[in-house]
Amino acid sequence: MNTSVKGLPKDSRDDHSRAIIAKRQDHLSQVADVTFDAVGGSTIDPQLTRGNIENLIGFAQVPMGVVGPLRIDGEHAKGDFFVPMATTEGALVASYNRGARVLTLSGGVRVVSTRDTIQRAPYFVLRDIKRAKAFTLWLRAHFDELHSIVAKSTRHGKLQDFSTYLIGRSVYVRFEYSTGDAMGMNMITKATQDVCRYIASQFEVVKWVIESNMAVDKKPAQIHMVLGRGKSVSAEALIPAQILRRFLGTTAAELASNIRSQMIGNAIAGVIGCTYQFANGVSAIFLACGQDLANISESAIGAVNFEDQAGDLYVSAYLPSIVVGTVGGGTGLPTQREALRIMDCQGAGKACKFAEIVAATLLAGEISLAAAVAAGDFVSAHEKYGRNRPEEVRGSPNASLLWQAEGEDPDEAVSCTTV
Amino acid sequence: MNTSVKGLPKDSRDDHSRAIIAKRQDHLSQVADVTFDAVGGSTIDPQLTRGNIENLIGFAQVPMGVVGPLRIDGEHAKGDFFVPMATTEGALVASYNRGARVLTLSGGVRVVSTRDTIQRAPYFVLRDIKRAKAFTLWLRAHFDELHSIVAKSTRHGKLQDFSTYLIGRSVYVRFEYSTGDAMGMNMITKATQDVCRYIASQFEVVKWVIESNMAVDKKPAQIHMVLGRGKSVSAEALIPAQILRRFLGTTAAELASNIRSQMIGNAIAGVIGCTYQFANGVSAIFLACGQDLANISESAIGAVNFEDQAGDLYVSAYLPSIVVGTVGGGTGLPTQREALRIMDCQGAGKACKFAEIVAATLLAGEISLAAAVAAGDFVSAHEKYGRNRPEEVRGSPNASLLWQAEGEDPDEAVSCTTV
Amino acid sequence: MNTSVKGLPKDSRDDHSRAIIAKRQDHLSQVADVTFDAVGGSTIDPQLTRGNIENLIGFAQVPMGVVGPLRIDGEHAKGDFFVPMATTEGALVASYNRGARVLTLSGGVRVVSTRDTIQRAPYFVLRDIKRAKAFTLWLRAHFDELHSIVAKSTRHGKLQDFSTYLIGRSVYVRFEYSTGDAMGMNMITKATQDVCRYIASQFEVVKWVIESNMAVDKKPAQIHMVLGRGKSVSAEALIPAQILRRFLGTTAAELASNIRSQMIGNAIAGVIGCTYQFANGVSAIFLACGQDLANISESAIGAVNFEDQAGDLYVSAYLPSIVVGTVGGGTGLPTQREALRIMDCQGAGKACKFAEIVAATLLAGEISLAAAVAAGDFVSAHEKYGRNRPEEVRGSPNASLLWQAEGEDPDEAVSCTTV
Amino acid sequence: MNTSVKGLPKDSRDDHSRAIIAKRQDHLSQVADVTFDAVGGSTIDPQLTRGNIENLIGFAQVPMGVVGPLRIDGEHAKGDFFVPMATTEGALVASYNRGARVLTLSGGVRVVSTRDTIQRAPYFVLRDIKRAKAFTLWLRAHFDELHSIVAKSTRHGKLQDFSTYLIGRSVYVRFEYSTGDAMGMNMITKATQDVCRYIASQFEVVKWVIESNMAVDKKPAQIHMVLGRGKSVSAEALIPAQILRRFLGTTAAELASNIRSQMIGNAIAGVIGCTYQFANGVSAIFLACGQDLANISESAIGAVNFEDQAGDLYVSAYLPSIVVGTVGGGTGLPTQREALRIMDCQGAGKACKFAEIVAATLLAGEISLAAAVAAGDFVSAHEKYGRNRPEEVRGSPNASLLWQAEGEDPDEAVSCTTV
Repeated sequence: MNTSVKGLPKDSRDDHSRAIIAKRQDHLSQVADVTFDAVGGSTIDPQLTRGNIENLIGFAQVPMGVVGPLRIDGEHAKGDFFVPMATTEGALVASYNRGARVLTLSGGVRVVSTRDTIQRAPYFVLRDIKRAKAFTLWLRAHFDELHSIVAKSTRHGKLQDFSTYLIGRSVYVRFEYSTGDAMGMNMITKATQDVCRYIASQFEVVKWVIESNMAVDKKPAQIHMVLGRGKSVSAEALIPAQILRRFLGTTAAELASNIRSQMIGNAIAGVIGCTYQFANGVSAIFLACGQDLANISESAIGAVNFEDQAGDLYVSAYLPSIVVGTVGGGTGLPTQREALRIMDCQGAGKACKFAEIVAATLLAGEISLAAAVAAGDFVSAHEKYGRNRPEEVRGSPNASLLWQAEGEDPDEAVSCTTV
Repeated sequence: MNTSVKGLPKDSRDDHSRAIIAKRQDHLSQVADVTFDAVGGSTIDPQLTRGNIENLIGFAQVPMGVVGPLRIDGEHAKGDFFVPMATTEGALVASYNRGARVLTLSGGVRVVSTRDTIQRAPYFVLRDIKRAKAFTLWLRAHFDELHSIVAKSTRHGKLQDFSTYLIGRSVYVRFEYSTGDAMGMNMITKATQDVCRYIASQFEVVKWVIESNMAVDKKPAQIHMVLGRGKSVSAEALIPAQILRRFLGTTAAELASNIRSQMIGNAIAGVIGCTYQFANGVSAIFLACGQDLANISESAIGAVNFEDQAGDLYVSAYLPSIVVGTVGGGTGLPTQREALRIMDCQGAGKACKFAEIVAATLLAGEISLAAAVAAGDFVSAHEKYGRNRPEEVRGSPNASLLWQAEGEDPDEAVSCTTV
Repeated sequence: MNTSVKGLPKDSRDDHSRAIIAKRQDHLSQVADVTFDAVGGSTIDPQLTRGNIENLIGFAQVPMGVVGPLRIDGEHAKGDFFVPMATTEGALVASYNRGARVLTLSGGVRVVSTRDTIQRAPYFVLRDIKRAKAFTLWLRAHFDELHSIVAKSTRHGKLQDFSTYLIGRSVYVRFEYSTGDAMGMNMITKATQDVCRYIASQFEVVKWVIESNMAVDKKPAQIHMVLGRGKSVSAEALIPAQILRRFLGTTAAELASNIRSQMIGNAIAGVIGCTYQFANGVSAIFLACGQDLANISESAIGAVNFEDQAGDLYVSAYLPSIVVGTVGGGTGLPTQREALRIMDCQGAGKACKFAEIVAATLLAGEISLAAAVAAGDFVSAHEKYGRNRPEEVRGSPNASLLWQAEGEDPDEAVSCTTV
Repeated sequence: MNTSVKGLPKDSRDDHSRAIIAKRQDHLSQVADVTFDAVGGSTIDPQLTRGNIENLIGFAQVPMGVVGPLRIDGEHAKGDFFVPMATTEGALVASYNRGARVLTLSGGVRVVSTRDTIQRAPYFVLRDIKRAKAFTLWLRAHFDELHSIVAKSTRHGKLQDFSTYLIGRSVYVRFEYSTGDAMGMNMITKATQDVCRYIASQFEVVKWVIESNMAVDKKPAQIHMVLGRGKSVSAEALIPAQILRRFLGTTAAELASNIRSQMIGNAIAGVIGCTYQFANGVSAIFLACGQDLANISESAIGAVNFEDQAGDLYVSAYLPSIVVGTVGGGTGLPTQREALRIMDCQGAGKACKFAEIVAATLLAGEISLAAAVAAGDFVSAHEKYGRNRPEEVRGSPNASLLWQAEGEDPDEAVSCTTV
């Protein structure tokens, strides 16, 4: 075993000068068979990443494509949008694009926003359970003071509400905040710390801890389906029978049958929510747009439904926990900023709009993949499967599943008939 | 509403020439207030991304840092490793680095690999439930034939086993494959399709569908905790009391108490698994190394445990579903290839090694964040919280939580005492 | 196959006269080798069961034991209680009794009540999702009217609050009621029906359905852990080290270690909540006391925690969804009524008290079984397992697990030292 | 607070003589306002309950009704069956009876059995994780020896297989047994103890504990849906359109739409499985037939599906974890024995048959309740709801929901046309 590898050069991990980056690269090249032509070849100014990374050695570069136009009639997003997606999974962009064009051809996606909250959930240990119960009542009676503490701590974060859970003499408090256009975990962590300190100065607590995991940040949890996290959005569309058949090679009856089978699969496997490929779309948009990728864990949770309405397909999506921001985090970095601007979603006042675009795009992906799966249905006597699958996607993970259907190419059709 | 946005230029979505990329950028610049100086400024040859993306407009560029050295005593990974992580979340790399150095100081992480399977789960509709039961027996009796069909379909994928679920007259079949060093969903989708066709040619089925969602690909599901997906890995380390105190500013008792509280939080919130920040580490490594980011959904699931052993901290992690590959997908792209090479994990024969490194790195992140949370414990009379938190991480999401502890900087210490 | 079995005599299924009961028994005796000496031998007047059963053929008779005294310091239950339990599982009563006596010896159980709600959750289909969003706002604006409709429908049920979930154009509405001392599903079903009719008369809905399964009545669901159902109660106790050792043959450290292992087992298996044997206690009390046994599904969900406090054991329980009533349902039947009276819990004004007694009793069962499991810990060199297990419980399911510990018998000790 | 309640008379808790029973009753009557006319009035010989209960004070008496005939074409159950159900919930028996008669009219229920296993899951702590991995391999290599140990421990229990989970240096081992016609937890607990002792004598373990909660006995857990517990059974039936309309007042399309809505409700609320009222049927049959009521927690888990097949309703149920026995436990008590004999399910060789009857009966309940819910669908302009609801069920919990539909009474029809 190689037990004497030296540490990185002893410069500050937050020094992003090209000199120290080169020293780090050199060090790694000495212990491994690696050069940094690509990682180090970025034209982005490393200094711009201060506060976003430590021990910088360069840039990961992931191809970015675009999907659209996708017509959206939301509360915040209105119009036809192109949506940037960064991925290395062949056929993913094409799959979403197909869904987007089909939706646009069908008149677009209607989207509504229903909640906007982000959580931090400290716990407090009290002397005993009776005192713990009294503590929960005290908190409720002093909500206005807690609200003021938060207002002093942050301009953008507002304390909206809280709920309490009595675990013996420990009180888990789930604080709900709004954070404007920032994803906001940092501001509310600080605000929660200030609130906790204030509480501890007013009410005798044995100890408190900043997080009990009731937040639940960056983990898949049923509570997100019930109470939401980040932006909660719902969407719907109606796809006429002839569009289904012509461009997706399937029918509403097949899709409704398929999703019922998926729901039962979910019920057995214990999946949180019920979707086809939310995670594909969420990860590709998040990566392009400078979102925190760890939030895929909750943002990709939701439920999709298909109904056969006299041959037309009614499709809806429930997306309770899209955790996004359009300021802060990675949103100010050069490529991420440009990606957001494609949708006019960069900066203040855009987070809800961005969430609605994410929701509509995810719906596009669901239709496209579901159609691919359903259109692959096989009656043993009548094979029809996958003949038209494009050659070029071979070799890419999941590509064959993303592209099984054999309808006409909607890209062509859309460009002729609609836009 | 802007209802007349034109579609992208009608060139093939798979044409990655610089000319068509420029045309796409121009088109977007006409409908939105955006330029592509950064996205389009990459020095990577776009032609290299064929098969990974469609409608290419450039590259997302995300800063990449490095963590290490992390000492690992695994079955496939042995030695001291530097681990690349790409992220825009300030303090994330520093947090993992702190954990890595503490683990290395403590003698490193022991890792074992326990399973290696990937699934595709078609369903078959039979005439009735009696026939469906007969079908399950027939499948079992003809396993060797199915195995042969797979062997003809793919050189790397092997059919290992399968299980069946009788949903009335529908039989959900969860095929388990090994896929060597590729993540492998594409090869097994094709293989499963071949298997299904063969089955349908031998046994009268009403219809079959390539996926029932029992796979469960790219979704958080309890079945992953029970049966695994991708690489299943377990890891452990023992951290001496004095290292805990000196570098993490906490004790084994505090950490053991903290994780019990988190477990209860999980039990109420309905989290799958029990971790602090697996998703942070998984997403950063996956992005750096060309993995499919949608697989964060299952790869970030697992369970961490802390035990107080006479003051020392015994820490372990159960990681049932790390879905990775070192060939195919995005692993051959320029920056991704270099990132993998830092760990000598690029190419054939490296996937299990890579999974073990991921596991060890995640363990590092758990210790670091748990210490930050636990060290923030407040006894009301004795505040000590966060005084030494570095200025530079302010403004980054979650940064304050990642960096609350106030022990000595292990980077300094490690470089003096160990390597 | 026996395909010509005749139906029961064509008398009303609600006729509970002894004559028709005898006719039903005769009929069954003709088609099966059965007599009804025991089922038909009850001395209870069958007419008393009208409204509780149809097609009556007699009575199931299950042995009833009693546990106690259990000292409780609750908000509604205060004092020392005997608790009736009906079961056929040998050692169950003894196991709970042991826990009860140990808790009483330790000063008793402190209990607090935190919520009291029961749900019915209809869904409404609107014209489209925009209208659905408007509907949710309309509901909020008209809460007072809905409250009045409920007040007209039932004297005991009160509409407390509601939450809405937008599933496309379907709005799932989770109405929260209080129902006094009745379990109350019947009254709130009728009230919800009245509310829905009123809503449909005021707001144009395409259709509505009385239940969407968001209630979630009689099913195990994570939402119960988060939002509660029925009575939500929390409890705690502190058991001194010497009592643990003397009467349970174990230590706080062993129990704390054991529950952490169980929590991880839960996390892998996907258990809702974290308990040892809540279902044993809930089912035995519910059966004795005329509760709806199907509500075991949610009532047995909860979380237990053990902490080692310098050798003493701090134990707590979170019981979010105890669904009970002390009027209506089966509570007025002869044996059920007597059972409730043992605790002074029969009739109006007793439901919250009853829930607190249930909670305290469940805590007793947890300690007892956990001690049995933990005390069975084996160091290979030092076997001590199960020597004192009573002979008489052999042959009963799970009995050996319920009675492994080898401490002194607390029944003896309690009677000498405390009461 | 009443703090000086005396304990029960100091006779053995296993003494079931009428004298000591009377002494216990007297004692309780002194501390509470209660007499035992009903509880003590049973004609069952108390001595028969030795081994089933401690601290006996009498018998809970619950009215028992009967449902049927229900036609079943199973692997073990073949013919027309009457099914005993004990409950205090008005309309429950009627609801199941309605479903049973509709199914019988439709030709009956086809049932297949797919698995039969019961689990005990000890954990072993090894020196370190490498040794733990070696231990898992050792166990696999010594399966035959473990099988022999079990064969020596019990005549009826057989070790079938096991799976292992590596939680750091702890190995959770989930042993799978068959137990013939006994529910069998007691025999396998003893057998597992013998196996653990043997293992500990052959392989150096730090310690072992008899249960890790991976069993998962008497708790609702996702693992039951995936791997089963007790008897795993699947069932189906096809109900012609005219029967649906005539006797249930609904259509296949309405039922298919309804269950999809329920599935989404489940997905949001985090229900394990997807059913309407499994718990009602399971609890009523289990109570009548001497099963362990705490096993309702897993036995009531499953999935139901409705499909519209050209107007006819295809209905299926997946019941992975019916935990039952026909020998041992409470099955030998007088009323329980008679109840089992109604179905010819008492004694050896009957457990699988009993499980199939349970499954078919549960299916009957699903159809009946789903029809009641769906038939209540309201188009605002055309109220039709609940007019024919029988008066007598008012006041009983949930009765209005169980009996909303307004079709013709199938009892009448069935007796004329079929039997």
